[in-house]
Amino acid sequence: MSQFWSPAVRALTPYVPGEQPRERLIKLNTNENPYPPSPAIEQVLQAFAVGHLRRYPDPESLALREALAKTHGVEPEQVFVGNGSDEVLALAFQAFFCQPKPLLMPAISYSFYPVYCKLYDIHYRTVALDDRWQIALKAFDADNGGVVFANPNAPTGHGHPRQAVAQLLERIIESVVLVDEAYVDFGGESVVPLIADYPNLLVAGTLSKGRSLAGLRVGYAIGSRELIEGLERVKNSFNSYPIDMLASEVAIASLEDESHFKACCEQVIATRERTRQQLEAMAFEVLPSQTNFLFVRHPRHSGASLFSGLRERGILVRHFNKDGLSDFLRISIGTDDEMGSLVEALQAIL
Amino acid sequence: MSQFWSPAVRALTPYVPGEQPRERLIKLNTNENPYPPSPAIEQVLQAFAVGHLRRYPDPESLALREALAKTHGVEPEQVFVGNGSDEVLALAFQAFFCQPKPLLMPAISYSFYPVYCKLYDIHYRTVALDDRWQIALKAFDADNGGVVFANPNAPTGHGHPRQAVAQLLERIIESVVLVDEAYVDFGGESVVPLIADYPNLLVAGTLSKGRSLAGLRVGYAIGSRELIEGLERVKNSFNSYPIDMLASEVAIASLEDESHFKACCEQVIATRERTRQQLEAMAFEVLPSQTNFLFVRHPRHSGASLFSGLRERGILVRHFNKDGLSDFLRISIGTDDEMGSLVEALQAIL
Repeated sequence: MSQFWSPAVRALTPYVPGEQPRERLIKLNTNENPYPPSPAIEQVLQAFAVGHLRRYPDPESLALREALAKTHGVEPEQVFVGNGSDEVLALAFQAFFCQPKPLLMPAISYSFYPVYCKLYDIHYRTVALDDRWQIALKAFDADNGGVVFANPNAPTGHGHPRQAVAQLLERIIESVVLVDEAYVDFGGESVVPLIADYPNLLVAGTLSKGRSLAGLRVGYAIGSRELIEGLERVKNSFNSYPIDMLASEVAIASLEDESHFKACCEQVIATRERTRQQLEAMAFEVLPSQTNFLFVRHPRHSGASLFSGLRERGILVRHFNKDGLSDFLRISIGTDDEMGSLVEALQAIL
Repeated sequence: MSQFWSPAVRALTPYVPGEQPRERLIKLNTNENPYPPSPAIEQVLQAFAVGHLRRYPDPESLALREALAKTHGVEPEQVFVGNGSDEVLALAFQAFFCQPKPLLMPAISYSFYPVYCKLYDIHYRTVALDDRWQIALKAFDADNGGVVFANPNAPTGHGHPRQAVAQLLERIIESVVLVDEAYVDFGGESVVPLIADYPNLLVAGTLSKGRSLAGLRVGYAIGSRELIEGLERVKNSFNSYPIDMLASEVAIASLEDESHFKACCEQVIATRERTRQQLEAMAFEVLPSQTNFLFVRHPRHSGASLFSGLRERGILVRHFNKDGLSDFLRISIGTDDEMGSLVEALQAIL
């Protein structure tokens, strides 16, 4: 606490990201991709003209927005970019959810959402998951100041099909519905094609997961021109140039290499399904996943004890010490070798 | 306007950065450094292990903060880093200036400051410059919710010595004084040594100007641990990882190459002083500058007509179409050749 802080800052509860350990561990705790990004990036860095860095980048990041538009079959004016999807989400909360009515979100979803609400003084209400740990889209009341959820959801892993989101959008027409597709590349169904029909739909995405670029910090949002313009108004009142020149060129090279991206995602999916079977054979309950992680619990071992047992064996997973979630572990999908080590370690613990 | 925007977003007046022209012009409009950044950066990019990008960066950017701390003779805990100094300034406004009393700023200074105030609903009052276009530090009332100014100031170019800022800090002890040193590398006197004595002093800096890295987006703030902690609370409620891996490594390489940095700044200063003499010989009034730009006006030619005349001759400078400033041009210092072309073009126009 400090007398110099703005009063609201004293009340903040900042987000706590997963640990980035300095020791050598098998790191299955922050849903990073186990495979490297496109090899084309190496050539980008070799060929980059360092002298250009003395200039400001394009404040509108047009080249990157064009590449994203092409990838997603939309127009550049329907694309917004930011310093990671966390920044994009924050700006969207400020642009759309500071409303008299409360924002609705699932009771269990990305834990940064309530943090943004505190930062921007947004009133929100949570909607319980259904009894299969899935987002209860039908329980979202039409009378709200906005809706946000991750699809597929984190840390549970379930994704709703596009049609289910379209049904929600038939009911909720007066506020913005923000669908966070950070994990969509591992088997989810993107709702980007719905933006043509629903001007209140905003879809957030990232290059961190499917494209193995967590270290680069490039995220985006896709929606109607009026939503993108709202985001730009906030962004241009905050920071004119969020995307640096290197990040833009590296991201574009990644977007142009569709085959490397698809092959890595398919490999992660195959490893996930094999790991799921192995864990089920050990009596774990494994929630269905369309992501690059599994959310699991064991009938006879607590989440905390399994977490510690794995950590002692050099394997880091994520354990959420929260009501309703503390029985579970969230395990990111690594390489086949890493998941083999995980399964062996769990067998030893059990 | 859109029904979906948060009400406050409808009232925003976003910042408008200087034009980034697509044609080939002599570009003296956004205070970029005319010399390339450290040649060591090329080796960083050649040697960068692209596979690391699949991981999240260090959310605390410790290596970069250590390099900045070493450069400025402070501790890493006294350093905050962000995506350009614009982001750092924005987070500082939110962290410290959302107060019941008004923020004070010079009537003429960096035009992003009032934009941040609108974004965060901060009440502010401006203090007129003195009759020599200098910030009137003695006119800043001690009863305030914060103070912000650029030193040296933009777009006027004048810098106060450290002792003058220390006198202000003797009077203003209950609110945060934010000194924006974006232009300090071109002959200004940094107030960083004062942070040991004044826990309410926050100094913002950037690698964009002196270190020729506008395209990289790395800015920082230096202050007491309690101010840095306030910034971190806001940052960790907004975006966990604002500095990407490449930006961190490139920035560190630049900070380690002090001789290249010093040589470029000295060259800019020498060119500025020669240009000043040439402009004065043509009857221009040239305000004293400790920055990489000159703020000039001519007794017989309007700012607007000189701006257009230069543009027609392929030279882009900055003209502010605002009360009190419209007579002036702000001319960034380019290479000797570029400034030679500028002087020739002005001679032709006059």
